Amino acid sequence: MNIYDIAKRSGVSIATVSRVLNGSEKVSPKTREKVLKVMQEEGYTPNIFARGLGLNSIKMIGILCTDVSDIFYAKAVSLVEGLLRQNGFDALLCCTGNELENKKKSLDLLLKKRVDAVILIGSAFKENTDNSHIENAAKQVPVIIINGLVELPNTYCVLCDEQSAVSQNVQLLHKQGYDDILYLYDVLTYSGCIKISGYKDGLKKCNLPFQETLMVKVPKSIDGVTAKVTELLGEGLKFSAVMASEDLLAIGALKALQKFNLTMPVIGFNNSILAQCSSPALTTVDNMLDTLCPTAVQLLVDILENKTVPQKIVISSKLIERDTFPI
Amino acid sequence: MNIYDIAKRSGVSIATVSRVLNGSEKVSPKTREKVLKVMQEEGYTPNIFARGLGLNSIKMIGILCTDVSDIFYAKAVSLVEGLLRQNGFDALLCCTGNELENKKKSLDLLLKKRVDAVILIGSAFKENTDNSHIENAAKQVPVIIINGLVELPNTYCVLCDEQSAVSQNVQLLHKQGYDDILYLYDVLTYSGCIKISGYKDGLKKCNLPFQETLMVKVPKSIDGVTAKVTELLGEGLKFSAVMASEDLLAIGALKALQKFNLTMPVIGFNNSILAQCSSPALTTVDNMLDTLCPTAVQLLVDILENKTVPQKIVISSKLIERDTFPI
Repeated sequence: MNIYDIAKRSGVSIATVSRVLNGSEKVSPKTREKVLKVMQEEGYTPNIFARGLGLNSIKMIGILCTDVSDIFYAKAVSLVEGLLRQNGFDALLCCTGNELENKKKSLDLLLKKRVDAVILIGSAFKENTDNSHIENAAKQVPVIIINGLVELPNTYCVLCDEQSAVSQNVQLLHKQGYDDILYLYDVLTYSGCIKISGYKDGLKKCNLPFQETLMVKVPKSIDGVTAKVTELLGEGLKFSAVMASEDLLAIGALKALQKFNLTMPVIGFNNSILAQCSSPALTTVDNMLDTLCPTAVQLLVDILENKTVPQKIVISSKLIERDTFPI
Repeated sequence: MNIYDIAKRSGVSIATVSRVLNGSEKVSPKTREKVLKVMQEEGYTPNIFARGLGLNSIKMIGILCTDVSDIFYAKAVSLVEGLLRQNGFDALLCCTGNELENKKKSLDLLLKKRVDAVILIGSAFKENTDNSHIENAAKQVPVIIINGLVELPNTYCVLCDEQSAVSQNVQLLHKQGYDDILYLYDVLTYSGCIKISGYKDGLKKCNLPFQETLMVKVPKSIDGVTAKVTELLGEGLKFSAVMASEDLLAIGALKALQKFNLTMPVIGFNNSILAQCSSPALTTVDNMLDTLCPTAVQLLVDILENKTVPQKIVISSKLIERDTFPI
């Protein structure tokens, strides 16, 4: 919804809408009311004060994340918010949940607030089927995606090479004689899928067969994972190491192993504070949020200053060695 | 800074400022420029569009928290943001860090954005010496504090009775024969202090002496706490149970105990996901964020609708029993 749409829907000229926006007294009260009503209905709120000051920007960036209570997203939001503020931008935060409908609604809402750009945190914003909402948003403002990949015009991605990370871990385990690797995941976001292809790639590079039974979907809760892995062990599933798509899942598995007095390599993902909390402490992949976030904010600043920037920046991950898999 | 101040500083009448704000063409370009310059210098950005629509509110709430990467604050921000949105409000998030100067600056910034109200998350916003910034903010908009207590006009607090929680835990431990209770804390925020008085109150109720050596300040990191408690155990400090002001610290202590093969009750605070990650899982106090946040948002909605509301709502905590202290 832009000024042209408002004019069309109000049945007046663009000049009239502009006059209303500028508070001109040349517009009749009746017309004024009609135009304002359409704007209100459409949620159209241009920051005319900023325009009055001759500024092109309201210095506000929309941040979308599915769930800021998730420890990984929380860290990203915290880093991004601080960095934006250092650069003179405010952060308007929207938590969307995983429903596509809500993601669309939240994105719409940010755009109606006339933010200068949108930062999407996490790969949960790349849908497998329909990314038209991101495409539409990018027609209005630059869209930056942290740790997700959507290749569209005016969309910029800063991400960690999670596929290689997982593949390398499989190879590392193989080198030490661990070939039957249980892989746990919870959701098939872009990141979730890319890690699975890393797992398969690693097996392939080691000439190991992919075993359907060793790739297991689990709920995103410690107790849920513990219950699931306990069940698998009870059923006699054989594996010699565990990898998980995030720390929480790895810790749930670790607790199940402890119940059976089993010791084997366990590798998490994200290098969250959770990895330090478990006993033994969890070996995990650092997906470099501390680098991704400053890189993304710098990219954004450069874009808004009309500098030429890359559309995609990929950073390598790092394996953090702790007690569950001493290398 | 309001319209009167702008008029005064610009050397024009209030009517002139008002005309500038309304985009009237009766103001000379020179005067207009002068007034806009003062407004820009002062960061005065009234939401004139909202006013133009006859709305008194821009439907935006400022959220201040010291650090959204903290797991407890992250959960609170997540809950509050979702609830605000359900009520038709946007959330403008500011993370301040612990420096008073930054807290003041962030609060100022939110007020200049003309938010409808401010929600302060966590007791870190109550200073021991100077709360004038909160007092000033509350002169402009309602201030809601979640889990902190500042008694000032137009300031509303929703908090958990953490003092009783800690006191009751001391009494519970005493009943089971644990009298030398190591108490670990990291910061002396309002919440930090209130928990310490709970510890002292509990000892008093059990006729136990307060021992200076058993109240220990530790860094807010797992490794830091583990090192400190290891050091204390190495020095021969005797204690038969551990309580901590938050889960992270309790887990750090637990790891030190494990190094010495010691088993004793350990009680955390916050009932965060960390408590579930530790092995054995941590018994901890739930300070009822799931109740505090909806209560706070409802309070805010009621305030903005000019309903009569209490200035202080106190909710009881709940002890969540897990493996480190089966009751």
